[in-house]
Amino acid sequence: MSTESVATPTVRPAKSVVSHPLAPLSSSEITSAAAIIKASWPTHTDLHFKVITLEEPPKAEVLPFLEAEHSRKPLPVISRKAFLNYYIRNTNKFHEAVVDLSTGRVLRNVLLGPNIHANGDGEEIVAIEKAALQDEGVKAEIAKLKLPAGTVVISDPWIYGSDGINDDDRMYQCFLYMRDPMNPTEADSNHYALPLPISPVVSTESMKVIRIDILPTGEDNTIKPIEPYQIKPPNEYIPEHQPLRTDLKPLNVIQPEGASFQVSHEGTSSVLSWQKWNFRVGFNQREGMVLYDVRYDGRSLFYRMSLSDMNIPYADPRHPYHKKSAFDLGDAGAGIMANNLKLGCDCLGSIYYLNAMLSDDKGGVIHMENVICIHEQDAGIGWKHTNYRTGRAAVVRSRELVLQSIITVSNYEYILAFVFNQAGEIDYEIRATGVLSTQPVDDGIEVPFGTVVHPGVLAVHHQHIFSLRVDPALEGHSNRLVYDEAHPMPRSDFNPHGIGYYVQETVVEESGGYDTDVDKNRVFKIQNNNVRNPVNGKPVAYKIQAPAFQKILSDKDSFNYKRSEFSDHNIYVVKYRDGELYAGGKYTNQSRGGTGVRSWANRKESVKDTDFVLYIQAGINHIPRVEDFPVMPCEILKIHLKPVNFFDRNPALDVPPSEQSFNKSVLVSEKHHQPSGEGKVGTNGGVCCVPKL
Amino acid sequence: MSTESVATPTVRPAKSVVSHPLAPLSSSEITSAAAIIKASWPTHTDLHFKVITLEEPPKAEVLPFLEAEHSRKPLPVISRKAFLNYYIRNTNKFHEAVVDLSTGRVLRNVLLGPNIHANGDGEEIVAIEKAALQDEGVKAEIAKLKLPAGTVVISDPWIYGSDGINDDDRMYQCFLYMRDPMNPTEADSNHYALPLPISPVVSTESMKVIRIDILPTGEDNTIKPIEPYQIKPPNEYIPEHQPLRTDLKPLNVIQPEGASFQVSHEGTSSVLSWQKWNFRVGFNQREGMVLYDVRYDGRSLFYRMSLSDMNIPYADPRHPYHKKSAFDLGDAGAGIMANNLKLGCDCLGSIYYLNAMLSDDKGGVIHMENVICIHEQDAGIGWKHTNYRTGRAAVVRSRELVLQSIITVSNYEYILAFVFNQAGEIDYEIRATGVLSTQPVDDGIEVPFGTVVHPGVLAVHHQHIFSLRVDPALEGHSNRLVYDEAHPMPRSDFNPHGIGYYVQETVVEESGGYDTDVDKNRVFKIQNNNVRNPVNGKPVAYKIQAPAFQKILSDKDSFNYKRSEFSDHNIYVVKYRDGELYAGGKYTNQSRGGTGVRSWANRKESVKDTDFVLYIQAGINHIPRVEDFPVMPCEILKIHLKPVNFFDRNPALDVPPSEQSFNKSVLVSEKHHQPSGEGKVGTNGGVCCVPKL
Repeated sequence: MSTESVATPTVRPAKSVVSHPLAPLSSSEITSAAAIIKASWPTHTDLHFKVITLEEPPKAEVLPFLEAEHSRKPLPVISRKAFLNYYIRNTNKFHEAVVDLSTGRVLRNVLLGPNIHANGDGEEIVAIEKAALQDEGVKAEIAKLKLPAGTVVISDPWIYGSDGINDDDRMYQCFLYMRDPMNPTEADSNHYALPLPISPVVSTESMKVIRIDILPTGEDNTIKPIEPYQIKPPNEYIPEHQPLRTDLKPLNVIQPEGASFQVSHEGTSSVLSWQKWNFRVGFNQREGMVLYDVRYDGRSLFYRMSLSDMNIPYADPRHPYHKKSAFDLGDAGAGIMANNLKLGCDCLGSIYYLNAMLSDDKGGVIHMENVICIHEQDAGIGWKHTNYRTGRAAVVRSRELVLQSIITVSNYEYILAFVFNQAGEIDYEIRATGVLSTQPVDDGIEVPFGTVVHPGVLAVHHQHIFSLRVDPALEGHSNRLVYDEAHPMPRSDFNPHGIGYYVQETVVEESGGYDTDVDKNRVFKIQNNNVRNPVNGKPVAYKIQAPAFQKILSDKDSFNYKRSEFSDHNIYVVKYRDGELYAGGKYTNQSRGGTGVRSWANRKESVKDTDFVLYIQAGINHIPRVEDFPVMPCEILKIHLKPVNFFDRNPALDVPPSEQSFNKSVLVSEKHHQPSGEGKVGTNGGVCCVPKL
Repeated sequence: MSTESVATPTVRPAKSVVSHPLAPLSSSEITSAAAIIKASWPTHTDLHFKVITLEEPPKAEVLPFLEAEHSRKPLPVISRKAFLNYYIRNTNKFHEAVVDLSTGRVLRNVLLGPNIHANGDGEEIVAIEKAALQDEGVKAEIAKLKLPAGTVVISDPWIYGSDGINDDDRMYQCFLYMRDPMNPTEADSNHYALPLPISPVVSTESMKVIRIDILPTGEDNTIKPIEPYQIKPPNEYIPEHQPLRTDLKPLNVIQPEGASFQVSHEGTSSVLSWQKWNFRVGFNQREGMVLYDVRYDGRSLFYRMSLSDMNIPYADPRHPYHKKSAFDLGDAGAGIMANNLKLGCDCLGSIYYLNAMLSDDKGGVIHMENVICIHEQDAGIGWKHTNYRTGRAAVVRSRELVLQSIITVSNYEYILAFVFNQAGEIDYEIRATGVLSTQPVDDGIEVPFGTVVHPGVLAVHHQHIFSLRVDPALEGHSNRLVYDEAHPMPRSDFNPHGIGYYVQETVVEESGGYDTDVDKNRVFKIQNNNVRNPVNGKPVAYKIQAPAFQKILSDKDSFNYKRSEFSDHNIYVVKYRDGELYAGGKYTNQSRGGTGVRSWANRKESVKDTDFVLYIQAGINHIPRVEDFPVMPCEILKIHLKPVNFFDRNPALDVPPSEQSFNKSVLVSEKHHQPSGEGKVGTNGGVCCVPKL
């Protein structure tokens, strides 16, 4: 079906409301979008909706709106559009559509493919689990294990990573586990501690098992016939199975006057104001949290910020494990997988929650509650100086604003947060936790591509490579990407002692993938060359600090490498184009590559003094430890964005001094002599130290 | 004077008390040590004491003591010794001595030198300031500036970094500044915003100005005659000079049942117990905080941990700036420069303070109060997993124990902290803050080795290179250093798709300097090859995660490089020797090199399965921003030590679940629907999410 043959709409459009052009779809807009598409098909056509989400207007339309909004001028009208993905249910007919919600017209509605497949969805995954476990052939293989009576077998459907071999059709690779056979009624038994060597492959078209893989469990790729299962111990993470430590005293965070931030709801999006920061929060099925129009003290910084995608390729080269290479956003969705956050569990202190509306597989609405928690936290000392001559110390604490969302992708959790501080800095924090993806291994086997974390359980090495999408608008939309390097000065009359060094700035002229270089202290900066710092005349800028990491290890001819278009460089820069949002491509499930940021960068467009977009990568090469099982302590990554000659002094200089009357700390020492206050007390009581000399 | 000619002691030794061999000197031990040394000289000899501190007993003597201590056996008696450094006042006669406090005997008392000089001390620095400002020649140069009447000129004495040119004698290089001439009575005016081009050099022997350097203020090394000063604006950091923001609400940390840690005082040292951690805290003039005998759940981890030294070389190659290369521990002392921490200013929550006793220049005692603050903090989610089938989430928060000390070294501050968590991890956190070291610059000048941060003020680029000394004792004192690297597998029948990778472990055989390699994901581990993990049989280990940084930029023939013996590698490993503690050498002031860790490493001793010591480096190449002035927001570095196959599962598995009844969070959303609790509630109420599917 193509755009030409669009049926005239037969449904009334959603009651037109004045929505912000960047506000997520409302529930009526979601159902109306579904209805418009359903109406374009013969009655009773069963559609399986994958995504119904806001089609963001072209930036060229949004910018005048934002200008008018901030200057309180009349707002231009921008038509609301919805983007949809759907299948004719139980077929491979995968469609992409855009509808105009104000007119009810279908603007685009095309059949995609070949080799373009949708993300998984909750209903589908549950159905796949059932299909695998109800298959007679699978039952026959399980029977060979001679499991204790009543044993509950669990099926974890995995995205079928492509290798180009008989994988044109859409499938799931299921991995089987069991609950503790000695405790089969425990629905929260950690089945990842008890993996089984059987792996059914299920077609999403027929919803039938089309192949049963038997897994290698030795040190090579030999496949042995299934033998009776030898009972192994369980390894539970739920608290009632632990002897809990009893010596941890409560720690409460109290804000007696409430929180310092304001949230104003405008339709389906929220605007946050806190400590000179101002931005709009969106939420969608794929990226989850999205920040728009981020400003500090009224000055524009970023047009849009979001996690673009992540890739998790595994190290085991043996069939079918070699296909384990997930894109958790493109294959599943950070929005739809978001946890419903509970007070006092996932955030500490005074918490504000945001809800969201997403679509289900029938074109209905899913009310996602508490998908983002917002709170303030103390981050220790922000700055301090003591004048040793007077003994007077000036010290302020650093307060942070956190927007946190937690996603569960099958076995694994990611805790994702944007963190703002009072020094004009933004951090994107990633915490990796949850349960390792495990597989069966024979006793006494050691392999160099994984770690035995429990008897009979192998946790294979894997990389987590994240791509943060940053669409800068530093004092406007004409920016440049530059990098600084520090180099030693050659010896000369000017540098006779060989100790001098200098910093050299280089402008990135062309779109492409670029890398940091620790030995040169290479630091990338977003810069506006037309706006100069009043103190030193340098262009205003924000620098990017991301932890160094090992790039993707799969070789350049591999499907892993071709598909993971962001995983080979620290930073990608591309000229802005509407609709380009996802570093791994729009459709990552069983993708073949060629549709993501590496391909866009290859257009070799000029990115100097223009509107460009950055994809900032961070990663972990996770070599599992026994300590990572049965659930792993958070591994934390932080990407920092910090002002460089953007302000005319330390932006946190006006934070009130840290004092006891405000902080209300408690002394727990028996004998403790507080400073006698010899140091001159400032009008704001900034004295925190006595003279040293 | 040599050990031979030691006078028979004429003073009674300190009343013998049963002190722990690692406990810092008591006040009576300090005064007694001074008295013993004074008695070894003719009466009325005026001694200028630099250091009187514990001479730690040989490790071979301490280990049996610790064994007996932990097994509650009778404790062997170890004699208490003091280490001293002193001058015959106003001479260059610098001595090193060791005395036995129980017998009162002088064990060692030798004249040092040539080219061995002591650290600065507070009394001396104040005297140098005066000497510089009272000099008629200096006054004459200042007069040429024609400063407004009443202007207060400030002198900042700087350690005279050596360049081998006429620097055999001990000197200070003073840099001059002034308070805001429009507000000369403000004792806390930020004089670093108003630097002057005059730099007197003062001899510590004569306490007289021996040279007056005029500073280059252009882009080259031309020295211009001093001209009348053109008034520049001030740039104050003290709160009464700021329009303070008014929209920050209080945030209090309350521990209604008190803190979870216990401190027991044993003489002058303190033993801390918290969440299975147990260790002894010491404090001395040079290193400040020192941790001894660090154990987790009764298992030995580290014999000793401390900051060994730091080096801050500057990028300006012009005389006399090329000599700016400070060793803040060796040249000054992290203990003696420690801030007196005030409740509610420097720590938030329930705080316990530790005091310390150090020595003054006359052999007396300085009572240093509140030099370490101890508190717990919440560090967000520690681990979480949600079973998407039942919707049940298990989540625990991460609680941390912090030992924090803050030092002021003239213009600059370092906030230094050991941080322990419940997953068996130790972080060493460094926060760099305070005021940039500034120098005068002509209007309109831009230089590649510094940044103009205020009119007339140049902040030169500089490196901060820190060296953390870690003396491991992982399940005993026979350990090895290894590193893991991740490598792609070659294509083969085993790896037909080119995606496989493996981890290879290499043993470090010989003492030396070693580097990380991000592209190989090289990670160093401390390992005990004789103790195996019960789950997978791998040797128990702790891994080291330190941020990548640019090594020292001064060339290999420079004094900077020769003196900074730790600054050229990420990690140094040397065989343990008693008395080797300081990575830059025992005496760093005007040092010439050859006495630090690089030299020890060159002994090329075997470090495999023996007692070795690590020096772990971390660093910042600080390219100043306008945002770093007048006081800089903290730049944060963290070195992580994490268990690898040391435990038999996640050590934080037994942390009680995060629940509202314990955390007492507050809801600030107007309308907020909490999960209905569909998910099965565990006996410990671990449910924090509702079913997703």
